[in-house]
Amino acid sequence: MRVNKSDFPILQQKINDHRLVYLDSAATSQKPMSVIESIEQYYKKDNSNVHRGVHTLGSRATEAYEAAREKVAQFIQASSSKEVIFTRGTTTALNLVASSYGRSKLSAGDEIWITAAEHHSNLIPWQQVAKATGAKLCYLELQADGSLDLEQVKGQLGPRAKILAIHHVSNVLGVIQPIADLAKLIHQQGGIIVVDGAQSIPHLSIDVQQLDVDFFAFSGHKMLGPTGIGVLYGKEALLEQMEPIEFGGEMIDFVGLHEASWKELPWKFEGGTPIIAGAVGLGAAIDYLQQVGMDQVEQHDRQLTAYAYQRLSQIDGVKLYGPQESRIGVVTFNLGSIHPHDVATVLDTEGIAIRAGHHCCQPLMKWLEETATARASFHIYNDEQDIEALASGLEKTKEFFGNAIG
Amino acid sequence: MRVNKSDFPILQQKINDHRLVYLDSAATSQKPMSVIESIEQYYKKDNSNVHRGVHTLGSRATEAYEAAREKVAQFIQASSSKEVIFTRGTTTALNLVASSYGRSKLSAGDEIWITAAEHHSNLIPWQQVAKATGAKLCYLELQADGSLDLEQVKGQLGPRAKILAIHHVSNVLGVIQPIADLAKLIHQQGGIIVVDGAQSIPHLSIDVQQLDVDFFAFSGHKMLGPTGIGVLYGKEALLEQMEPIEFGGEMIDFVGLHEASWKELPWKFEGGTPIIAGAVGLGAAIDYLQQVGMDQVEQHDRQLTAYAYQRLSQIDGVKLYGPQESRIGVVTFNLGSIHPHDVATVLDTEGIAIRAGHHCCQPLMKWLEETATARASFHIYNDEQDIEALASGLEKTKEFFGNAIG
Repeated sequence: MRVNKSDFPILQQKINDHRLVYLDSAATSQKPMSVIESIEQYYKKDNSNVHRGVHTLGSRATEAYEAAREKVAQFIQASSSKEVIFTRGTTTALNLVASSYGRSKLSAGDEIWITAAEHHSNLIPWQQVAKATGAKLCYLELQADGSLDLEQVKGQLGPRAKILAIHHVSNVLGVIQPIADLAKLIHQQGGIIVVDGAQSIPHLSIDVQQLDVDFFAFSGHKMLGPTGIGVLYGKEALLEQMEPIEFGGEMIDFVGLHEASWKELPWKFEGGTPIIAGAVGLGAAIDYLQQVGMDQVEQHDRQLTAYAYQRLSQIDGVKLYGPQESRIGVVTFNLGSIHPHDVATVLDTEGIAIRAGHHCCQPLMKWLEETATARASFHIYNDEQDIEALASGLEKTKEFFGNAIG
Repeated sequence: MRVNKSDFPILQQKINDHRLVYLDSAATSQKPMSVIESIEQYYKKDNSNVHRGVHTLGSRATEAYEAAREKVAQFIQASSSKEVIFTRGTTTALNLVASSYGRSKLSAGDEIWITAAEHHSNLIPWQQVAKATGAKLCYLELQADGSLDLEQVKGQLGPRAKILAIHHVSNVLGVIQPIADLAKLIHQQGGIIVVDGAQSIPHLSIDVQQLDVDFFAFSGHKMLGPTGIGVLYGKEALLEQMEPIEFGGEMIDFVGLHEASWKELPWKFEGGTPIIAGAVGLGAAIDYLQQVGMDQVEQHDRQLTAYAYQRLSQIDGVKLYGPQESRIGVVTFNLGSIHPHDVATVLDTEGIAIRAGHHCCQPLMKWLEETATARASFHIYNDEQDIEALASGLEKTKEFFGNAIG
């Protein structure tokens, strides 16, 4: 694979006198130099507002911004760049679907289906829509490892099932859900599927047409891009039916004193000055991932995740959550009775960055019967050496706490 | 003044074989090297997700993000950093007030007061709130130059006036509105004032307590900071009464299957991974502005605007809009019967960047009885030489169009 750790300047530093072992990419990924430089170059050469300028910088900025949209469209195999809405991130994208599509299409008694493993950003917006419309928020049954039994799902989704909103890859369990199959099941009932792709797009080739998803949301910062930029993909026919929820410049056609009309897609959802440099940085991240090759990325991340799972399972006192197979990017665990915050704190003294807590998944923690877990997560700049460092750090953690693994 | 054009790398280039004369800062400002470097350094050294990490990078990123909030609070003299909500920009900030405060507090017959000179982002959100609540959208009378007569305003604002939403500085006319006086008038009626500060914060010292404004919205990218970051300042007591409109991670306290509760201020309004690098860049922009000194910035920008107004008024065929005094940052004009897009296009061949169009102010264009205008706008990196270049460019434009100034 054509990935060099030296492409990622942040990894070249020491933390607490140790090589930085960054195992927190599910929270946010690190950025290759090409992404950092694309932002720098944008501000040094082309910075201007977009769409409205007839001067040279205005044209360059507009081209850079819209070229980024084209890159995204091609990266996820959208049928048109009109289907790519730039947002602040996954959260904004999911809220847009819930607030606009959800509130206008649902009536009392309609059903919104999610799972107990959703990230809060794919859960609370639906709680709110349910409250506002009288729709019911229903939970698909999860298997013990967080996967879904399609036959069981089929039994749960009836004719009132209007929306299935689900993670593609769980940020806690790492499970890869069978999105194409789920899309078929909900479409059979006349409903639509909304996919939280925050944890899948960093690792998997995404073809929204092949998956036949209606909406697909993701963030740039988890896929080597900058913070503050994300995407809502939506099928054109659905986006056409939706009203914007944010109003201002850039998204209008006519504005009178008491009424206004909107621009065509995708701009009607992008009120105000866009996140121009963010889009440029996201485009550079896509370039980088495509140079590596998404097949290569997936293979690397699957193998490394499997290696980590297997390596950690050998450590006495480690309890792992989620499936052994069909998993990518994330390994979540606890170490005996040691609080995961304490685990993360000790690991930090060794230069190892993992996350501890509820991972924005309180209902899933309850379902796992844990208050918190530790989580190591990976991207293409990680390797087996990093996993060995983690394993050895966990042994040290046990020693530090007097082998309190009972 | 301690501003060096060489601090702004983008200005060191030639456009169409001419020195770049950037006169479009009201659309977006250029960035000093220190801002660009702050973003670069963030990604090279500290990048991590915030608030949730117990590892070193997580702490550094959290500190950087919250330090930026403190800088903003101090820059606008907020009484607490709890009153500083980071948003995607002015548009998102104004929509948040309208959607959350507006929709929950207004009833049929209540009045929202704005002016015909509002940017679309401070107009359409209120049209929408009026439609949703039955409130009336009312327009303050503007004087011929776009200023307000306070006696007249006093006569217009009655006891049903719940919200006065107004620009501090017009992005077309450059008028500086008497915000402190307006705040007094609306407070006397028991209403609140929402200020669109997008065009004032780049040029004026802002003291939200002295102005006694209830909400104040602005964007980073117009004040030397990056795109994709902005601020909603709100009085703590009002923000406390408001419900979030975007839901996800970072903004919650407890999350159950069917209900959730929110974090305290300011985080309850910041669902999802924040715009971390954007906030860091905005903090660096504030540092830069404060090194120059906001008094110096204001003096420079007032003088240069006055100089531009006076210089352009000497050109035969130039029609200027807005007041001669009490103006900052912007000079809007037309040149005979030449379409402003054509003016901007000819100027671009001379390396001069101005804007032409409706400037996201269609109602104001109608009020001015124009379909479009040209606009030159300034920041601290501009000087009289730039204005001379513009004046000479306008003379060339007239020649190019056969002196069609009738």
